[in-house]
Amino acid sequence: MPTDDPLWRCFALKIAYDGTRYAGWQIQPNGLAIQQVLSESIAHVLGHPVSIQGSGRTDAGVHARGQVAAFGTSAWKHTADKIVRAINQHLPKDIAALECREVIGAFDPIRNAISKTYRYTIRNSSVPDPLGQLYHWWIPRELDVQSMRAGASKLIGTHDFKSFETLGSTRKTSVRTVYKLEVQTVEALAGREILIEIQADGFLYNMVRNIAGALVQIGKGRFGPSWLDAVIDSKERDSESQTAPARGLCLMSVQYPDSLYIDLPSDRSNKT
Amino acid sequence: MPTDDPLWRCFALKIAYDGTRYAGWQIQPNGLAIQQVLSESIAHVLGHPVSIQGSGRTDAGVHARGQVAAFGTSAWKHTADKIVRAINQHLPKDIAALECREVIGAFDPIRNAISKTYRYTIRNSSVPDPLGQLYHWWIPRELDVQSMRAGASKLIGTHDFKSFETLGSTRKTSVRTVYKLEVQTVEALAGREILIEIQADGFLYNMVRNIAGALVQIGKGRFGPSWLDAVIDSKERDSESQTAPARGLCLMSVQYPDSLYIDLPSDRSNKT
Repeated sequence: MPTDDPLWRCFALKIAYDGTRYAGWQIQPNGLAIQQVLSESIAHVLGHPVSIQGSGRTDAGVHARGQVAAFGTSAWKHTADKIVRAINQHLPKDIAALECREVIGAFDPIRNAISKTYRYTIRNSSVPDPLGQLYHWWIPRELDVQSMRAGASKLIGTHDFKSFETLGSTRKTSVRTVYKLEVQTVEALAGREILIEIQADGFLYNMVRNIAGALVQIGKGRFGPSWLDAVIDSKERDSESQTAPARGLCLMSVQYPDSLYIDLPSDRSNKT
Repeated sequence: MPTDDPLWRCFALKIAYDGTRYAGWQIQPNGLAIQQVLSESIAHVLGHPVSIQGSGRTDAGVHARGQVAAFGTSAWKHTADKIVRAINQHLPKDIAALECREVIGAFDPIRNAISKTYRYTIRNSSVPDPLGQLYHWWIPRELDVQSMRAGASKLIGTHDFKSFETLGSTRKTSVRTVYKLEVQTVEALAGREILIEIQADGFLYNMVRNIAGALVQIGKGRFGPSWLDAVIDSKERDSESQTAPARGLCLMSVQYPDSLYIDLPSDRSNKT
């Protein structure tokens, strides 16, 4: 990053995407990545190739309403918020820039994140919903939401979440702090949705989908809520465990300290 | 309809669909129709060809959360609600059966409808929403919702809606009674949605999309609410008028007299 360039500025771009047709966030040899499509659109606006870094990867089929991507340039001469519209003009309809703010040169979207919030959506109705099928896991059988809530409460706080990590990842530590884990129900077409909202200081590979899978096991009555105490203590991924499908998962927001922003929040009212 | 067959029974099936990839409700030479896909699925369940009749047509790209389709058979030996799951097993993911009730043999889904309710969804935010793009009309510029509401109130009641009918239709009368026309706002991703909910005893061709287009003109300040009085009085489609795009429109429900049902409402709780 040419920090000796006096015109060099760094930006944190908030984006949303429908992950259905993508191979995930990260650029890779097989399949189209969101990172690639986004960097090409930003490069088009800036007139030079650009490297963008996300707050973390999302897997194939996972959606986002508040992913954050950072990039630097000396080519942009306007305020940060003005770039949003320009970028959207070059993006396909399933990716959108929502907001852009200028950040300090040392901004690191992964390391500087205080916390992230994900939502996992379950459709719980005897009949499917054709208008939401790409955004939820459909479970026809009625789930016991009270038991799911009791289970969820056991995961709040600082724990070693190794048993909720899909194998193959290489993180130094599997200790994470879950700040919030709420199980809500909302009315939906001919039934209801169960929303699992989770905020933590960081997430292991597949952690949210594995937690959602475990809560569904409890909701089905296969295990009682206290089963999760044993799962946490075991510190290994159980063969009984389920990983919830990608399409129900959405990255809702990433929280950063206010001190990293060097502008005021952009005006998000309805101006063009 | 072989009403002399003592085993003959008639059913009213409530269905939902994502209209995106269809050429509309009605079977036609070009493009795949929802009516066709649905009748083939029901035929598969019953073991004989079946003719289904909808409460009305929806155009290409229009969605439904409560379309009603009627069919008759002597092949079904169980209660009406039991057929829902069987039909869903043969439907593609973008069409779903929600509920089925047995109705009198003379049931006519078009003529017997007391009223229908449609919703038109406008996304009103400076940035697009990639997760809802197929289900709304995106208008970046802030609309004046108070004026839209004032305009909407002028359309409630019995009027000749000829000026809201797209040419080419051949209805006997263009007088309709609008029972409800509400303009609501709801929070959405980085902005808001404006929901136009309309209930009437019947609708002319493109009537909801033409009303939505007119209310948007008022919301943009091109005309004041009282312009609609003049539009109604003119009784002809104005060249200034806009037809809102199909993807924002959804048929929410069709209301029938209770006396046409010969069973109790099916249990829509979460049973499999």
